[in-house]
Amino acid sequence: METAAGESADRIEQLRARAARLREHSLRATSEAGSGHPTSCLSAADLVAALFFDVMRYDPADPGNPQADRFILSKGHAAPLLYAAWAEAGAFPVERLLTLRRIDSDLEGHPTPRFPAVLAATGSLGQGLSVGVGAAWSAKQLDRRDQRIYVLLGDGEVAEGSVWEAAAIAAHYRLDNLVAIVDVNGLGQSQRTMEGHDAARHAERFAAFGWHAMAIDGHDVSAVVRAFDAAAAVRDRPVAILARTNKGQGVSTLADRDNWHGKAVKKGAELDAALAELRTAAPSVRLAPVRARVRAHVAPAAVAKAVDGPQYRADEQVATREAYGTALAKLGSVNPLITVIDGDTKNSTFAERFLAAHPERYLEGFIAEQNMVGAAIGLSACGKVPFVSTFAAFLTRAFDQIRMAAVSRATIKLAGSHCGVSIGEDGPSQMGLEDLAMMRAIPHAAVLYPADAVATERLVEAMTQQPGIQYLRLARPKTPILYGANEQFAIGGSKVLRAHAQDRLTIVSAGVTLFEVLKAHDALAREGFHVRVIDAYSVKPIDAETLRAAARATHGRVLTVEDHYGDGGLGDAVLNALAAEPASVVKLAVDDIPRSGKPEELLRLFRLDAASIATAARAAAG
Amino acid sequence: METAAGESADRIEQLRARAARLREHSLRATSEAGSGHPTSCLSAADLVAALFFDVMRYDPADPGNPQADRFILSKGHAAPLLYAAWAEAGAFPVERLLTLRRIDSDLEGHPTPRFPAVLAATGSLGQGLSVGVGAAWSAKQLDRRDQRIYVLLGDGEVAEGSVWEAAAIAAHYRLDNLVAIVDVNGLGQSQRTMEGHDAARHAERFAAFGWHAMAIDGHDVSAVVRAFDAAAAVRDRPVAILARTNKGQGVSTLADRDNWHGKAVKKGAELDAALAELRTAAPSVRLAPVRARVRAHVAPAAVAKAVDGPQYRADEQVATREAYGTALAKLGSVNPLITVIDGDTKNSTFAERFLAAHPERYLEGFIAEQNMVGAAIGLSACGKVPFVSTFAAFLTRAFDQIRMAAVSRATIKLAGSHCGVSIGEDGPSQMGLEDLAMMRAIPHAAVLYPADAVATERLVEAMTQQPGIQYLRLARPKTPILYGANEQFAIGGSKVLRAHAQDRLTIVSAGVTLFEVLKAHDALAREGFHVRVIDAYSVKPIDAETLRAAARATHGRVLTVEDHYGDGGLGDAVLNALAAEPASVVKLAVDDIPRSGKPEELLRLFRLDAASIATAARAAAG
Repeated sequence: METAAGESADRIEQLRARAARLREHSLRATSEAGSGHPTSCLSAADLVAALFFDVMRYDPADPGNPQADRFILSKGHAAPLLYAAWAEAGAFPVERLLTLRRIDSDLEGHPTPRFPAVLAATGSLGQGLSVGVGAAWSAKQLDRRDQRIYVLLGDGEVAEGSVWEAAAIAAHYRLDNLVAIVDVNGLGQSQRTMEGHDAARHAERFAAFGWHAMAIDGHDVSAVVRAFDAAAAVRDRPVAILARTNKGQGVSTLADRDNWHGKAVKKGAELDAALAELRTAAPSVRLAPVRARVRAHVAPAAVAKAVDGPQYRADEQVATREAYGTALAKLGSVNPLITVIDGDTKNSTFAERFLAAHPERYLEGFIAEQNMVGAAIGLSACGKVPFVSTFAAFLTRAFDQIRMAAVSRATIKLAGSHCGVSIGEDGPSQMGLEDLAMMRAIPHAAVLYPADAVATERLVEAMTQQPGIQYLRLARPKTPILYGANEQFAIGGSKVLRAHAQDRLTIVSAGVTLFEVLKAHDALAREGFHVRVIDAYSVKPIDAETLRAAARATHGRVLTVEDHYGDGGLGDAVLNALAAEPASVVKLAVDDIPRSGKPEELLRLFRLDAASIATAARAAAG
Repeated sequence: METAAGESADRIEQLRARAARLREHSLRATSEAGSGHPTSCLSAADLVAALFFDVMRYDPADPGNPQADRFILSKGHAAPLLYAAWAEAGAFPVERLLTLRRIDSDLEGHPTPRFPAVLAATGSLGQGLSVGVGAAWSAKQLDRRDQRIYVLLGDGEVAEGSVWEAAAIAAHYRLDNLVAIVDVNGLGQSQRTMEGHDAARHAERFAAFGWHAMAIDGHDVSAVVRAFDAAAAVRDRPVAILARTNKGQGVSTLADRDNWHGKAVKKGAELDAALAELRTAAPSVRLAPVRARVRAHVAPAAVAKAVDGPQYRADEQVATREAYGTALAKLGSVNPLITVIDGDTKNSTFAERFLAAHPERYLEGFIAEQNMVGAAIGLSACGKVPFVSTFAAFLTRAFDQIRMAAVSRATIKLAGSHCGVSIGEDGPSQMGLEDLAMMRAIPHAAVLYPADAVATERLVEAMTQQPGIQYLRLARPKTPILYGANEQFAIGGSKVLRAHAQDRLTIVSAGVTLFEVLKAHDALAREGFHVRVIDAYSVKPIDAETLRAAARATHGRVLTVEDHYGDGGLGDAVLNALAAEPASVVKLAVDDIPRSGKPEELLRLFRLDAASIATAARAAAG
């Protein structure tokens, strides 16, 4: 145990004094900003004081040290408290706390990685525990490091299902280096929470989910340190500390009052009175300096090994999802940072090939997509290169986490299989038809949609070679091999597959429908009607230059074909590329809620088969 | 209690015989289709037999009867079992079961409302319990009807957090007319579930969430009917029956075996052997006919009262989110079907005004967005007109439920407040910047983005006048009143706000940025540079005709301005409207992850303020 000293009077007085200062900083900073959530800081101040000035092993001079114990503020609206703790520990001058929420400050309204101690952006509630699962699994399973992860949640946010996804999985993997602290202040934004101040009821839930759970008084600093001491001794299960608190604790005009969520105390008399009350109650002790309790960080050596290229016969039929699994297994052998999470679909996404080759770096995510993406953010924050796979349709479940991954500047690789109506009989609930729209909306994300196994393998490799978020769209059906083993694919590229001096139209497609386009091309060519065909495997960034050149060469006539809903997909990407051109773009896409049926029947129903494409091409060429 | 007869031998034999037939139908239909999930049907067959042939009060001749007890198959991949139960009850000839998964059949691979007994499409796991919460709350709170809602879940899907959102809220509202049955067969798609066959552990979790929970043997028909009898006697809390089962039960080559998820038994010898085994074990009894146990359905009388129009002074500043609350309260007075769910943001979205006026039709959803949308699907299925509100950013949490609402052909109205960087200091986690992209992707959904309070009130009214999904995008800042009280707004419309014979450019905007565009217009006009200004308050359907006319009148030069990320929003909607025109479109949008700051600073940072718009306008006009 780290804290063998017990709860000496001085230890407790030190923490009470620190807590008073954290409260003071939180009030001052929000009053200076004129907005923020001071009362949500005050409820958690004693808990955070104990963590930062007693429990956690870290180096105040190196807040990003990857070997330190990590703190995740899931209740992100208490950001001023987080900043106050780091400033008070000595990471930066406390005066800078007064820049809170300013456009030139790194102390944002909710935490983002602009502030270097922040593992992941928070503020969309209920996401921090999943980030903690990723970080705790990384420390325990991958880095095999004595490192503890502390996640502070609000009691309102445990209504979010993502918390219980994380809770179940943390217990399943026996993450005894993960400690969740719930600040049970009983008040949400607009009314009392469902459970009010009943910390014991929250504790029962965590216990039922397999956690070691303790309900305590979150303002009794002795009880708080005893709980953390006890947490350090628990083996084989994660620990939850359910701390009964009062929102606004320490200031009598705020404590446990309604209508004080997200409101700053007015500068002047109101603030002065609150600060005076805090100071009067604070013990007067000489504060002990905070010393580094973690080794200096050594960056791991870079890895650079060549991966085996794609190996397919020209006459083979291979689903892109299968090539994804093959690529992952190969890349895992040359890059030890690659980890894979799949949502009980590994036999459909072929992530099972990575599991077979590198079982120690595979995290079964079960049917809990939000937690998968949250955990991947945690893995990214720990320097890993996480891939997350499930059906494309089910990635929509994690859109909020994906959005927050972007705010977190995380490096995560998403793979969505079973896209489009071409999955067939399973029907619309299983068809990814809005995934391109969802992923295109994320700034700086790459959106990739390979048509064959060769392109898939090369693009998975390309995904591992750059930071940030990339999405790979994968299809269910087996399709022909289109490219030679040495063909190169770059994020942002495209392939002109057919071109003729008399091309009257450019057809842009990707994935499964590209094969229908090629069939349409051949049928039209037999009529003497020539069309250019482009494989836009990089939907974002799209290869605007190639598209513009093709549009100009084909009288400005362009047809797009995609197995995706009409709004937000490949067609819209092409429209953007040609926004400044006098081009005329016609889109073929899925224009209604689909149904069950055979893949080829459904492609025909939505006019995405070769015959329909040929008809549309003739019409589009005028 | 409905089932006072006790568990007579005949009662049990009847059910065992029915269960055998349900298993037989499930096997036959999937074998005929050549795909599907027969083993997931077999595990639940005894449970479903008890529900359909003993417990539920319904009319086989009228599967959609809204007064009947309702059954929701959350584990949608067991669809063949659902269809078999209805056919066996007499709703349609059992021969039709063999059309399963065909493109001309209503018996889809996963249930959709093409089949009239289906309240909501399922197949994206973990959503059915929320639908059940909506339906149970509707029956108990709104219709005050003795009606019970049964939801069958798989054990794999309880890993989905949405299940626990629904569980907490069902207990909070004491929905004792809601019964969840979990088919604990221990096997997921690709491996064992986290809890395996431990039904008791699942029961502990439901109990900790406030449910009356019972763990039973799901193949012991006596135990099953006893559990349902007990469930009917429970008051003040929902009931969970955790039934230990075997996947593939009844066929020795399938029962509790790996690698049988989502696989049909081969027609011929393999199927014949399985059927023979089932028949040998089935009791030979004469099956009792199924009689209607519910009154014939009477449609409620239509309502049509006029609502009070908007009442604002021309010099007022009103946030659109505030007008939303005002409109809801007024419309609630003329339309008793309107119900409102909000996610503990009612003092931000102003849904609190509906709560104040119509408390009996307000459901506090707490911080659980997935459950809010799921419950709204349930309310829609019960004939209500549900509105769901929270911050636009947090609706991304429910994208999968929104997607499934579309597959369900549900009528739900979504309102997302605090859109864009114009919320200011709270920072990117709270800014809705991908909501237009998300909602545009949904087929047939309307996407509305009013600039002022008058337009907001009129559009909320328009939303109540049509079925399906509509999304209303709401802003945080107070903005001027732009329109007179009698101005009319239609879904699919737009307003040309400024037009001049010498217009050199069309600027299309909506919401907060429209006021910046108007300021830019005035500044440019003072230079003698005239621009046309369009309020595209209906982003989808977009008013393509007006946009085309404007583009033609302004030399094909168009500038779009929106407080949203660049891909998928208003600019893309305009590009689509002009896809066949020789127009040149320039988009101004948020092109990077934003940060905290003052609203006006952030608009300037992302070049969405009047000065930047004027600069872009000059450049775009060439």
